[in-house]
Amino acid sequence: LLTSSMEDYLEMIYRIQKEKGLVRVKTLAEMLNVRDSSVTKMVQKLAAINLINYEKYGIIRLTGEGEEIGEYLLNRHMIVEKFLKIITNDEIKLMDVEMIEHNLDPKLLAHLHQLVLFFENNLDVMEKFCQFKGQNK
Amino acid sequence: LLTSSMEDYLEMIYRIQKEKGLVRVKTLAEMLNVRDSSVTKMVQKLAAINLINYEKYGIIRLTGEGEEIGEYLLNRHMIVEKFLKIITNDEIKLMDVEMIEHNLDPKLLAHLHQLVLFFENNLDVMEKFCQFKGQNK
Ligand SMILES: [Mn+2]
Ligand SMILES: [Mn+2]
Repeated sequence: LLTSSMEDYLEMIYRIQKEKGLVRVKTLAEMLNVRDSSVTKMVQKLAAINLINYEKYGIIRLTGEGEEIGEYLLNRHMIVEKFLKIITNDEIKLMDVEMIEHNLDPKLLAHLHQLVLFFENNLDVMEKFCQFKGQNK
Repeated sequence: LLTSSMEDYLEMIYRIQKEKGLVRVKTLAEMLNVRDSSVTKMVQKLAAINLINYEKYGIIRLTGEGEEIGEYLLNRHMIVEKFLKIITNDEIKLMDVEMIEHNLDPKLLAHLHQLVLFFENNLDVMEKFCQFKGQNK
Protein backbone atom coordinates (compact mmCIF):
# COMPACT_ATOMS: atom_id res chain seq x y z
CA LEU A 1 0.00 0.00 0.00
CA LEU A 2 1.22 3.49 -0.87
CA THR A 3 1.28 6.30 1.68
CA SER A 4 -0.33 9.66 0.84
CA SER A 5 3.12 11.13 0.41
CA MET A 6 4.18 8.39 -2.00
CA GLU A 7 0.99 9.02 -3.96
CA ASP A 8 1.74 12.75 -4.18
CA TYR A 9 5.23 12.06 -5.48
CA LEU A 10 4.04 9.55 -8.07
CA GLU A 11 1.32 11.90 -9.25
CA MET A 12 3.82 14.73 -9.67
CA ILE A 13 6.44 12.55 -11.36
CA TYR A 14 3.80 11.37 -13.81
CA ARG A 15 2.66 14.96 -14.43
CA ILE A 16 6.21 16.17 -15.13
CA GLN A 17 7.12 13.15 -17.26
CA LYS A 18 3.99 13.75 -19.36
CA GLU A 19 4.65 17.47 -19.79
CA LYS A 20 8.42 17.62 -20.09
CA GLY A 21 9.48 14.09 -20.91
CA LEU A 22 12.34 14.21 -18.42
CA VAL A 23 12.00 14.24 -14.63
CA ARG A 24 14.91 15.49 -12.55
CA VAL A 25 15.26 15.41 -8.76
CA LYS A 26 15.72 19.20 -8.83
CA THR A 27 12.52 19.83 -10.79
CA LEU A 28 10.55 17.52 -8.55
CA ALA A 29 11.87 19.24 -5.41
CA GLU A 30 10.85 22.63 -6.80
CA MET A 31 7.39 21.50 -7.86
CA LEU A 32 6.67 19.79 -4.54
CA ASN A 33 8.33 22.57 -2.59
CA VAL A 34 10.58 20.23 -0.63
CA ARG A 35 14.34 19.76 -0.29
CA ASP A 36 16.40 17.75 -2.76
CA SER A 37 17.32 15.40 0.08
CA SER A 38 13.64 14.61 0.75
CA VAL A 39 13.14 13.84 -2.91
CA THR A 40 16.17 11.58 -2.94
CA LYS A 41 14.87 9.60 0.04
CA MET A 42 11.45 9.11 -1.51
CA VAL A 43 12.92 8.28 -4.89
CA GLN A 44 14.86 5.46 -3.24
CA LYS A 45 11.69 4.11 -1.64
CA LEU A 46 9.78 4.21 -4.91
CA ALA A 47 12.69 2.59 -6.75
CA ALA A 48 12.79 -0.18 -4.12
CA ILE A 49 9.21 -1.16 -4.97
CA ASN A 50 9.87 -0.92 -8.70
CA LEU A 51 7.66 2.06 -9.46
CA ILE A 52 10.50 4.22 -10.77
CA ASN A 53 14.02 3.84 -12.03
CA TYR A 54 16.60 6.21 -10.71
CA GLU A 55 19.04 6.85 -13.52
CA LYS A 56 22.27 8.78 -13.96
CA TYR A 57 22.47 12.57 -13.52
CA GLY A 58 19.45 12.67 -11.15
CA ILE A 59 17.01 11.54 -13.78
CA ILE A 60 13.87 9.70 -12.65
CA ARG A 61 11.83 7.49 -14.92
CA LEU A 62 8.55 5.72 -14.12
CA THR A 63 8.42 1.98 -14.72
CA GLY A 64 5.41 0.55 -16.56
CA GLU A 65 3.61 -0.06 -13.28
CA GLY A 66 4.65 3.35 -11.93
CA GLU A 67 3.26 5.02 -15.02
CA GLU A 68 -0.04 3.17 -14.70
CA ILE A 69 -0.41 4.21 -11.06
CA GLY A 70 0.70 7.78 -11.82
CA GLU A 71 -1.93 8.07 -14.53
CA TYR A 72 -4.62 6.84 -12.13
CA LEU A 73 -3.49 9.31 -9.45
CA LEU A 74 -3.42 12.34 -11.75
CA ASN A 75 -6.82 11.37 -13.10
CA ARG A 76 -8.15 10.98 -9.56
CA HIS A 77 -6.83 14.40 -8.65
CA MET A 78 -8.55 16.00 -11.62
CA ILE A 79 -11.89 14.28 -10.95
CA VAL A 80 -11.90 15.37 -7.30
CA GLU A 81 -10.91 18.89 -8.32
CA LYS A 82 -13.71 19.11 -10.89
CA PHE A 83 -16.21 17.68 -8.42
CA LEU A 84 -15.24 20.28 -5.83
CA LYS A 85 -15.45 23.06 -8.41
CA ILE A 86 -18.99 21.98 -9.29
CA ILE A 87 -20.27 21.80 -5.74
CA THR A 88 -18.46 24.81 -4.30
CA ASN A 89 -18.27 27.15 -7.30
CA ASP A 90 -15.39 28.84 -5.59
CA GLU A 91 -11.83 28.69 -6.53
CA ILE A 92 -11.10 25.51 -4.66
CA LYS A 93 -7.94 25.06 -2.71
CA LEU A 94 -5.35 22.39 -3.38
CA MET A 95 -5.65 21.34 0.27
CA ASP A 96 -9.31 20.40 -0.21
CA VAL A 97 -8.39 18.01 -3.00
CA GLU A 98 -5.57 16.59 -0.91
CA MET A 99 -7.89 15.93 2.03
CA ILE A 100 -10.17 13.80 -0.09
CA GLU A 101 -8.17 12.07 -2.79
CA HIS A 102 -5.98 9.85 -0.64
CA ASN A 103 -8.99 8.22 1.05
CA LEU A 104 -11.07 7.60 -2.02
CA ASP A 105 -11.61 4.08 -3.15
CA PRO A 106 -11.50 3.38 -6.90
CA LYS A 107 -15.15 2.33 -7.17
CA LEU A 108 -16.28 5.50 -5.47
CA LEU A 109 -14.00 7.54 -7.72
CA ALA A 110 -15.69 6.00 -10.76
CA HIS A 111 -19.09 7.07 -9.41
CA LEU A 112 -17.79 10.56 -8.70
CA HIS A 113 -16.50 10.71 -12.26
CA GLN A 114 -19.98 9.85 -13.54
CA LEU A 115 -21.43 12.68 -11.48
CA VAL A 116 -18.88 15.14 -12.89
CA LEU A 117 -19.57 13.97 -16.45
CA PHE A 118 -23.32 14.25 -15.84
CA PHE A 119 -22.99 17.91 -14.87
CA GLU A 120 -20.54 18.63 -17.70
CA ASN A 121 -22.93 17.10 -20.22
CA ASN A 122 -26.05 18.73 -18.80
CA LEU A 123 -25.29 22.40 -18.40
CA ASP A 124 -28.99 23.10 -17.77
CA VAL A 125 -28.76 20.92 -14.65
CA MET A 126 -25.58 22.73 -13.62
CA GLU A 127 -27.42 26.06 -14.00
CA LYS A 128 -30.39 24.74 -12.01
CA PHE A 129 -28.07 23.60 -9.25
CA CYS A 130 -26.40 27.03 -9.08
CA GLN A 131 -29.80 28.67 -8.77
CA PHE A 132 -30.83 26.17 -6.09
CA LYS A 133 -27.74 26.94 -4.04
CA GLY A 134 -28.33 30.68 -4.43
CA GLN A 135 -31.84 30.33 -3.00
CA ASN A 136 -30.79 28.12 -0.10
CA LYS A 137 -28.16 30.47 1.21
CA LEU B 1 -8.85 17.73 17.80
CA LEU B 2 -10.89 14.54 17.98
CA THR B 3 -9.62 11.25 16.58
CA SER B 4 -11.81 9.24 14.17
CA SER B 5 -12.49 6.79 16.96
CA MET B 6 -13.58 9.55 19.36
CA GLU B 7 -15.88 10.84 16.65
CA ASP B 8 -17.43 7.42 16.16
CA TYR B 9 -18.09 7.09 19.88
CA LEU B 10 -19.60 10.57 20.16
CA GLU B 11 -21.80 9.97 17.15
CA MET B 12 -23.08 6.70 18.63
CA ILE B 13 -23.58 8.14 22.12
CA TYR B 14 -25.60 10.96 20.60
CA ARG B 15 -27.63 8.50 18.53
CA ILE B 16 -28.46 6.32 21.55
CA GLN B 17 -29.18 9.27 23.83
CA LYS B 18 -31.60 10.65 21.23
CA GLU B 19 -33.36 7.33 20.72
CA LYS B 20 -33.39 5.83 24.20
CA GLY B 21 -32.70 8.76 26.50
CA LEU B 22 -30.21 6.74 28.54
CA VAL B 23 -26.77 5.61 27.40
CA ARG B 24 -25.09 2.73 29.21
CA VAL B 25 -21.55 1.42 28.74
CA LYS B 26 -23.05 -2.01 27.97
CA THR B 27 -25.34 -0.68 25.22
CA LEU B 28 -22.55 1.34 23.67
CA ALA B 29 -20.22 -1.69 23.65
CA GLU B 30 -22.90 -3.76 21.91
CA MET B 31 -23.73 -1.11 19.32
CA LEU B 32 -20.07 -0.45 18.48
CA ASN B 33 -19.21 -4.13 18.68
CA VAL B 34 -16.32 -3.61 21.08
CA ARG B 35 -15.51 -4.74 24.62
CA ASP B 36 -16.84 -3.01 27.70
CA SER B 37 -13.25 -2.26 28.70
CA SER B 38 -12.62 -0.39 25.43
CA VAL B 39 -15.75 1.68 26.01
CA THR B 40 -14.66 2.48 29.55
CA LYS B 41 -11.27 3.72 28.35
CA MET B 42 -12.78 5.95 25.69
CA VAL B 43 -15.44 7.22 28.06
CA GLN B 44 -12.69 8.37 30.42
CA LYS B 45 -10.95 10.22 27.58
CA LEU B 46 -14.16 11.94 26.49
CA ALA B 47 -14.99 12.84 30.10
CA ALA B 48 -11.50 14.32 30.52
CA ILE B 49 -12.20 16.83 27.74
CA ASN B 50 -15.67 17.59 29.08
CA LEU B 51 -17.68 16.11 26.24
CA ILE B 52 -19.50 13.59 28.43
CA ASN B 53 -20.21 12.98 32.07
CA TYR B 54 -19.69 9.50 33.38
CA GLU B 55 -22.30 8.93 36.05
CA LYS B 56 -23.17 6.16 38.49
CA TYR B 57 -24.22 2.66 37.33
CA GLY B 58 -22.34 2.96 34.00
CA ILE B 59 -24.52 5.74 32.69
CA ILE B 60 -23.05 8.17 30.16
CA ARG B 61 -24.46 11.61 29.50
CA LEU B 62 -23.30 14.13 26.88
CA THR B 63 -22.43 17.61 28.12
CA GLY B 64 -23.83 20.61 26.22
CA GLU B 65 -20.73 20.75 24.04
CA GLY B 66 -20.71 16.96 23.61
CA GLU B 67 -24.31 17.06 22.44
CA GLU B 68 -23.59 19.81 19.94
CA ILE B 69 -20.67 17.88 18.47
CA GLY B 70 -22.64 14.61 18.49
CA GLU B 71 -25.46 16.25 16.57
CA TYR B 72 -23.00 17.56 13.96
CA LEU B 73 -21.39 14.12 13.61
CA LEU B 74 -24.68 12.22 13.20
CA ASN B 75 -25.81 14.81 10.68
CA ARG B 76 -22.53 14.51 8.81
CA HIS B 77 -22.88 10.73 8.71
CA MET B 78 -26.38 10.99 7.26
CA ILE B 79 -25.38 13.52 4.60
CA VAL B 80 -22.43 11.40 3.43
CA GLU B 81 -24.65 8.30 3.42
CA LYS B 82 -27.33 10.03 1.34
CA PHE B 83 -24.71 11.42 -1.04
CA LEU B 84 -23.24 7.96 -1.56
CA LYS B 85 -26.71 6.48 -2.09
CA ILE B 86 -27.38 9.04 -4.81
CA ILE B 87 -24.15 8.56 -6.71
CA THR B 88 -23.83 4.79 -6.33
CA ASN B 89 -27.47 3.63 -6.27
CA ASP B 90 -26.29 0.50 -4.58
CA GLU B 91 -26.79 -0.43 -1.05
CA ILE B 92 -23.82 1.47 0.27
CA LYS B 93 -21.60 0.00 2.89
CA LEU B 94 -20.98 1.52 6.30
CA MET B 95 -17.25 1.37 5.58
CA ASP B 96 -17.61 3.74 2.63
CA VAL B 97 -19.20 6.37 4.85
CA GLU B 98 -16.50 5.84 7.47
CA MET B 99 -13.73 6.33 4.90
CA ILE B 100 -15.04 9.74 3.98
CA GLU B 101 -16.71 11.34 6.95
CA HIS B 102 -13.70 11.73 9.21
CA ASN B 103 -11.77 13.74 6.64
CA LEU B 104 -14.53 16.07 5.58
CA ASP B 105 -14.24 19.71 6.48
CA PRO B 106 -17.43 21.48 7.62
CA LYS B 107 -17.58 23.88 4.68
CA LEU B 108 -17.32 21.03 2.23
CA LEU B 109 -19.98 19.12 4.15
CA ALA B 110 -22.33 22.08 3.76
CA HIS B 111 -21.77 22.03 -0.01
CA LEU B 112 -22.35 18.28 -0.11
CA HIS B 113 -25.58 18.82 1.81
CA GLN B 114 -26.73 21.32 -0.83
CA LEU B 115 -26.04 18.76 -3.54
CA VAL B 116 -28.07 16.10 -1.70
CA LEU B 117 -30.95 18.55 -1.17
CA PHE B 118 -30.80 19.53 -4.84
CA PHE B 119 -31.28 15.93 -5.94
CA GLU B 120 -33.96 15.29 -3.31
CA ASN B 121 -35.89 18.36 -4.46
CA ASN B 122 -35.48 17.68 -8.18
CA LEU B 123 -36.43 14.08 -8.76
CA ASP B 124 -36.44 14.70 -12.53
CA VAL B 125 -32.71 15.48 -12.29
CA MET B 126 -32.20 12.36 -10.19
CA GLU B 127 -33.98 10.32 -12.88
CA LYS B 128 -31.89 11.96 -15.60
CA PHE B 129 -28.70 11.14 -13.69
CA CYS B 130 -29.73 7.48 -13.33
CA GLN B 131 -30.36 7.26 -17.07
CA PHE B 132 -27.03 8.95 -17.77
CA LYS B 133 -25.18 6.42 -15.64
CA GLY B 134 -27.03 3.55 -17.30
CA GLN B 135 -25.88 4.74 -20.74
CA ASN B 136 -22.27 5.29 -19.69
CA LYS B 137 -21.76 1.79 -18.33
MN1 LIG C 1 -2.71 15.34 -5.36
MN1 LIG D 1 -19.84 7.23 11.48
